[in-house]
Amino acid sequence: MSTDPAAPTPPYEITSDVAELGFNQYGKSEIRLVHVERDGARHELTDVNVSSQLRGDFARVHTHGDNAACVATDSQKNTVFSLAREGVGAPEAFATRLADHFTGTYDWVTGGRWEVEQLAWNRIVTENGPHDHAFVRAGKEVRRTVVQRDGDDLFVVSGVTDLTVLKSSGSEFVGFVDDTYRTLADATDRIMATDITAWWSYDPARAREVDFDAVYDSVRQIILSRFAELHSLALQQTLWAMAVTVIETHADITEIRLSCPNNHHVVVDLSPFGQDNPNVVFFAADRPYGKIEASVTRKGVPSEPRAWSTVPAFA
Amino acid sequence: MSTDPAAPTPPYEITSDVAELGFNQYGKSEIRLVHVERDGARHELTDVNVSSQLRGDFARVHTHGDNAACVATDSQKNTVFSLAREGVGAPEAFATRLADHFTGTYDWVTGGRWEVEQLAWNRIVTENGPHDHAFVRAGKEVRRTVVQRDGDDLFVVSGVTDLTVLKSSGSEFVGFVDDTYRTLADATDRIMATDITAWWSYDPARAREVDFDAVYDSVRQIILSRFAELHSLALQQTLWAMAVTVIETHADITEIRLSCPNNHHVVVDLSPFGQDNPNVVFFAADRPYGKIEASVTRKGVPSEPRAWSTVPAFA
Amino acid sequence: MSTDPAAPTPPYEITSDVAELGFNQYGKSEIRLVHVERDGARHELTDVNVSSQLRGDFARVHTHGDNAACVATDSQKNTVFSLAREGVGAPEAFATRLADHFTGTYDWVTGGRWEVEQLAWNRIVTENGPHDHAFVRAGKEVRRTVVQRDGDDLFVVSGVTDLTVLKSSGSEFVGFVDDTYRTLADATDRIMATDITAWWSYDPARAREVDFDAVYDSVRQIILSRFAELHSLALQQTLWAMAVTVIETHADITEIRLSCPNNHHVVVDLSPFGQDNPNVVFFAADRPYGKIEASVTRKGVPSEPRAWSTVPAFA
Amino acid sequence: MSTDPAAPTPPYEITSDVAELGFNQYGKSEIRLVHVERDGARHELTDVNVSSQLRGDFARVHTHGDNAACVATDSQKNTVFSLAREGVGAPEAFATRLADHFTGTYDWVTGGRWEVEQLAWNRIVTENGPHDHAFVRAGKEVRRTVVQRDGDDLFVVSGVTDLTVLKSSGSEFVGFVDDTYRTLADATDRIMATDITAWWSYDPARAREVDFDAVYDSVRQIILSRFAELHSLALQQTLWAMAVTVIETHADITEIRLSCPNNHHVVVDLSPFGQDNPNVVFFAADRPYGKIEASVTRKGVPSEPRAWSTVPAFA
Repeated sequence: MSTDPAAPTPPYEITSDVAELGFNQYGKSEIRLVHVERDGARHELTDVNVSSQLRGDFARVHTHGDNAACVATDSQKNTVFSLAREGVGAPEAFATRLADHFTGTYDWVTGGRWEVEQLAWNRIVTENGPHDHAFVRAGKEVRRTVVQRDGDDLFVVSGVTDLTVLKSSGSEFVGFVDDTYRTLADATDRIMATDITAWWSYDPARAREVDFDAVYDSVRQIILSRFAELHSLALQQTLWAMAVTVIETHADITEIRLSCPNNHHVVVDLSPFGQDNPNVVFFAADRPYGKIEASVTRKGVPSEPRAWSTVPAFA
Repeated sequence: MSTDPAAPTPPYEITSDVAELGFNQYGKSEIRLVHVERDGARHELTDVNVSSQLRGDFARVHTHGDNAACVATDSQKNTVFSLAREGVGAPEAFATRLADHFTGTYDWVTGGRWEVEQLAWNRIVTENGPHDHAFVRAGKEVRRTVVQRDGDDLFVVSGVTDLTVLKSSGSEFVGFVDDTYRTLADATDRIMATDITAWWSYDPARAREVDFDAVYDSVRQIILSRFAELHSLALQQTLWAMAVTVIETHADITEIRLSCPNNHHVVVDLSPFGQDNPNVVFFAADRPYGKIEASVTRKGVPSEPRAWSTVPAFA
Repeated sequence: MSTDPAAPTPPYEITSDVAELGFNQYGKSEIRLVHVERDGARHELTDVNVSSQLRGDFARVHTHGDNAACVATDSQKNTVFSLAREGVGAPEAFATRLADHFTGTYDWVTGGRWEVEQLAWNRIVTENGPHDHAFVRAGKEVRRTVVQRDGDDLFVVSGVTDLTVLKSSGSEFVGFVDDTYRTLADATDRIMATDITAWWSYDPARAREVDFDAVYDSVRQIILSRFAELHSLALQQTLWAMAVTVIETHADITEIRLSCPNNHHVVVDLSPFGQDNPNVVFFAADRPYGKIEASVTRKGVPSEPRAWSTVPAFA
Repeated sequence: MSTDPAAPTPPYEITSDVAELGFNQYGKSEIRLVHVERDGARHELTDVNVSSQLRGDFARVHTHGDNAACVATDSQKNTVFSLAREGVGAPEAFATRLADHFTGTYDWVTGGRWEVEQLAWNRIVTENGPHDHAFVRAGKEVRRTVVQRDGDDLFVVSGVTDLTVLKSSGSEFVGFVDDTYRTLADATDRIMATDITAWWSYDPARAREVDFDAVYDSVRQIILSRFAELHSLALQQTLWAMAVTVIETHADITEIRLSCPNNHHVVVDLSPFGQDNPNVVFFAADRPYGKIEASVTRKGVPSEPRAWSTVPAFA
């Protein structure tokens, strides 16, 4: 029993004439799960970070402290591990299995949000070739998905974060507003560097049929190629070019949101030391940084708020 | 000039029959600014982290790389420093000054988003009392605001993040769903610990008149007091209690959103070592953690999407 | 059994004609432990992060994979929790209990290293006064200790990290080397800000008798007071002043090491906007930062390498 | 002038009968520098984080606030950028150039410490092949060096941090001490995962002649190969195997220090859900973690304290 002698007998209601409960969700976040597929000597590794949140009729948990309808966050964690026993697969597919399980098992759970981050590993290559069961972490970027279910509707958004790129030429920034607050000179050849965050939504009608792994690889490659090959007049233009190619290439994608810091690289003034500096030595600044954010949609397809709510695309 | 011999003469258009530009914004993020008010010997210190993002007619920056309408992020940074010369004041008031400045100065800037984080400092106390100009950082929590302007409409949301609290008794969690996936036992007396994130929106009609410092202090105190004094049956109930009191106390607040991890503290099983453990020794776990999120609104006042978009309240 | 069909029967030796095993230690790091003293209604909270590492005759674990002498890191963790059942007390005292336990229990454990970080909490204050069992995290600084045992010798080093301070006046920096590489102007009045790391060693002959809590509070206050009250000509001078006072005040302290970044605050040039800036608006830079490090010892007492090895005082 | 009316005329001495200045160093840390080699269209990118610290006769800066001998940290930063104009090359070589410059330029600078971190980039590959001037960040590991000069003696230590690896089989841990505090079962087939930190010192007589890039690549590959291919009976044994091969392969390396967390992956008990779990589903824990640290030296070559002091190899 509680040490609090004044505690009332639970449950008990906290009422209000002026306040009412709005949107709410709860669950278990950042369940770090590693799955090893061991068919024979050659193992396949899947390393994910899973978050599960349920939505539905949970008002009495809040207002009364009555947990009769509460599927404990610990139970949600157990479920994630249990479902992973049969394999994980694409993050989007695993999140969808979780969505279907929870909404199908508890009739007062009418929806929810399942997020999966996937960390990439490469096989270690030795003189004997790629190893069967030894791996080294690949890259710093993270593949991500947010899957949301609202009644029978399923919304899948996929993304990549921390995809860090830099081009040492092929980028200009000239002709911007020249007023009292401008002190920056035109730059006809500058370093452009950013950590790309991209999220894209799928046509809900197709959200159970997409080959998510293939689309992920393609979108990532489009982003890298457009970044590399476009002679850029503004980071905004680069984002637009990336997004246009993604929308044109993938009919299943309805919208893409890009959020990119402008990681400034400043040409160091070496003239006090009697040296020139023709774009050779740069100072890589931390803060502040520019931030460019844009959504590009498929013509005729309005952005779907239920797909994008709680997706950390812009902030 | 660019080193890229194939670069076309700027600006040039990237067109698409199927893609179109949606929501977009850009600016300078995390401008770390310290303001010293030095009227006489006793200094006042304001330490803020300011982000500015503009919205309006910036389509040609994206589609053509035409920067004629682009107020450079560097110029936005300059403006932030320049406006701080006259003082910073409450974060909400400073963000509003920025909003008014940018929308008032550039007629194609129809709105934007200004975020301010404020770090707290206490005076160092020596044997001579509180010092005039020496300070020590106070706490780990951060006071925050997101101010958005859409045409003539102003939306102010205030918040606090990383307000870490723990109660070592006065918290239960019993009677939740008991099915296959439940392995957690009822707990009639447990540690409850969380890092509180709270954001609250103000009545737009009052957003230029509120005493933001006073409301911040009051909301923070309400949150702490309710956390401490409510005998809690669920973290959801604690959030509801905090929110109800905030809404009931502050007529200017229309909605509050709370997002709280459940920082699990597990009673360690000491029986293998011949010891009991009556809630004395706990293991503080990192991941996974529970996550409880809820919005509480004022009855009759619908949630305002333009106030809450891009506020990192839930995720 | 292992899936590796070629695995030899353990243990097996890996020999070398040219390599030999040097210093080694192993253990469990960052055991997050919360202790609640619940004598009556008023609880006392101790929140620590404990790391244990053993030294001794562990050569065969390395060379043969023979674990017969290996006290598993998991067992070390169990021991930490078990010993905490009787209370934690000062971090230095708890680390010493661990040191004595491990070296006293396993005769081939001839020494080791025990580190404890302590996080501070304040009672939440409500209208009913300080609460019996509800707490809010205090400050961002961390109290730390590294206790090492080498045979029968015990070495205690205590510290504080992330003690962030700033003074908005009372700091100069003038008259430094003026050569080709100097571009910085003299500053007769500047902001001085730093995140103090301080570590101090105790006289081994007194290491079981010190009132560590009292000394910690005193050293912390000396550091803050000297920072505040010394009109500083260089951050080096401020460090020297802090250290001298600590050594002069505490006879049990043999040496103190201070490592302090110089968190640069740059006066923003507002002249392009027609404004002056008499030390009012500053840009707080991230990187690079100055770094000032110094050891101050008690005259006649040489620095003890066994106390300071593996203490992260300078880096 | 300072606002402090009581400030004495600088410099002024702070004396002590009982305290004396010991080891000290100062400089500029984390100078983020990007160098672009642009011989023709194909650019070469070098991305480093440089820290410079000087040692020598700086006592009066501390005791008197007399900066006459002080080479400002800002001037050290300028020097780093200036020397980079002629190219960076291997981190060890650049740090050595800095060491020689500072000790050669200021006769009271008798030594110092120069640390360089290098971030890796790959060329972006498009349908047109590897790009001339567009890059994507490679991996999360960081190549590092600490070069110290003490009078005419030069000490070079190289390292790698955050090299994250995992093997899903080929690792056992059995037969460890079985006493009261043991609760862990033997594991004949477990996941072994770690973030490798390795530092190795070079023979000072050869420290200006080594092909540092080649040795780095070789040591990294040895570490990965030994991790992958050794059937491991203990993480200690794996470290020993890595180190032995490094010492045997590279005659210029005198000592290697390895510090490796044991990133525990726990087989999840799925039996409550009616499932088996033959090493398929794992929980990846954060804290606590094991930590295994060992130095392996070349026989007959004692460890050199001046090479290893201030190298963050063990902590």
